[in-house]
Amino acid sequence: MASYRLFYWPQIPGRGEFVRLAFAAAKVPLPEVNDVGKLVALTSADGGVAGHEPQFAVPVLEVQPERQAPFYLSQTGNILQFVAKRFGLDGEQPGVESDVTHAQVLQFTLTGLDWALEAHNVHHPISVALYYEDQKPEALRYTQAFVHERIPKFAKHFQAALTLNRQRHNVRRLVGTKTSVADLVLFQVLEGLRFAHPRAMQRLQDSGDAADLEPFRAELAEELKEYLGSARRRPFSDGLFRYYSELDL
Amino acid sequence: MASYRLFYWPQIPGRGEFVRLAFAAAKVPLPEVNDVGKLVALTSADGGVAGHEPQFAVPVLEVQPERQAPFYLSQTGNILQFVAKRFGLDGEQPGVESDVTHAQVLQFTLTGLDWALEAHNVHHPISVALYYEDQKPEALRYTQAFVHERIPKFAKHFQAALTLNRQRHNVRRLVGTKTSVADLVLFQVLEGLRFAHPRAMQRLQDSGDAADLEPFRAELAEELKEYLGSARRRPFSDGLFRYYSELDL
Repeated sequence: MASYRLFYWPQIPGRGEFVRLAFAAAKVPLPEVNDVGKLVALTSADGGVAGHEPQFAVPVLEVQPERQAPFYLSQTGNILQFVAKRFGLDGEQPGVESDVTHAQVLQFTLTGLDWALEAHNVHHPISVALYYEDQKPEALRYTQAFVHERIPKFAKHFQAALTLNRQRHNVRRLVGTKTSVADLVLFQVLEGLRFAHPRAMQRLQDSGDAADLEPFRAELAEELKEYLGSARRRPFSDGLFRYYSELDL
Repeated sequence: MASYRLFYWPQIPGRGEFVRLAFAAAKVPLPEVNDVGKLVALTSADGGVAGHEPQFAVPVLEVQPERQAPFYLSQTGNILQFVAKRFGLDGEQPGVESDVTHAQVLQFTLTGLDWALEAHNVHHPISVALYYEDQKPEALRYTQAFVHERIPKFAKHFQAALTLNRQRHNVRRLVGTKTSVADLVLFQVLEGLRFAHPRAMQRLQDSGDAADLEPFRAELAEELKEYLGSARRRPFSDGLFRYYSELDL
């Protein structure tokens, strides 16, 4: 049995939350290192942890196998794919080869993370090294495309996926018969968008174009309620998903 | 033995080129469907190909197993991970478990694709639905951060990875002893950046901060020379990597 630690920023849910949800769903402990100095050292372009692959950015997962040296993994979709196989969050589909199922789960995982990245770019369209206040005109322009085109496009895509998989397996999940990391990503993106763009998300719901997304979100919230009700669940603030009234519909 | 087809835009190398390089390296045929009407139908949010998982965007890989229905995969990093295992482009490392090696390859693959995405955002910082000419002031601002901060940061990261792996295996590749899909992604990004940002890339080379990148690129070009010299290799133009003199250093 391996043990794990998450290296991520203090306080914010951010991209670390996708990893936390996978561990919460699998009921596997995930202690965290939130010391900014250690995070900067780990992701330093000049080497990171001596003897280990360099990590471009957090979240970074430390994997400590029994009786072997620890190793480090980053890229959120990659971490999720890795733990999904170990924790049974990999979207089992009766009669489908596991490499095909894993690819379908990774595909929806990456598309969900793309949606989250665009939600981040709403308040940081020019540079992550500048404050939102230093890129407000660009953020306002980006918002128009995001709320009018991109939210509906992503939402309809996931609606189509939920519809197809329900026809196959009579369950409201993206791939196969049970909750996978792709579902956890979609859940967290929907939570974040409700926080950051409440008016745009209300309009989406009223349109009926993606009618399964809200019941999907509610089902996942029920499944994860122990974690979501705990002190480990961090509230949205000024991370990946941010609420600025002028950046909503 | 399965057969494959790539669904991608006509003419441009774009994200399809990462997939083409994997098939070229593995010497597996990859016929293409470049009919825009078919691409739009396949990636339609309202369903895509009947009975198959919806695809958000091209490139889409059609996999046709023997005596079974075809299936479709998208998300460039996901397609690459899938074919890497089948074609032996998955970065074999003596003494390391294959799931760990696969995760390291996927990590560098995704980081290379992030670099490509930022190179795309240089000319499209606000919306993919607008022309470059409609987002020029924002593109100029984005360029500043990209050429001064992001190119050096990504370059040093990959330099550190090449240095570490050479210490381990005495070979100039990202993971293990032979060429993986992560190497192919890095190669294509370096090619694209030389086209789109020749002055920034010359300065990077002169700085000596990422001294292995150019010899790495040249080694890969030698390995892929049959493909690169063929009519299948598409020249850069107005796709992912674009040359606008005002968007260089």
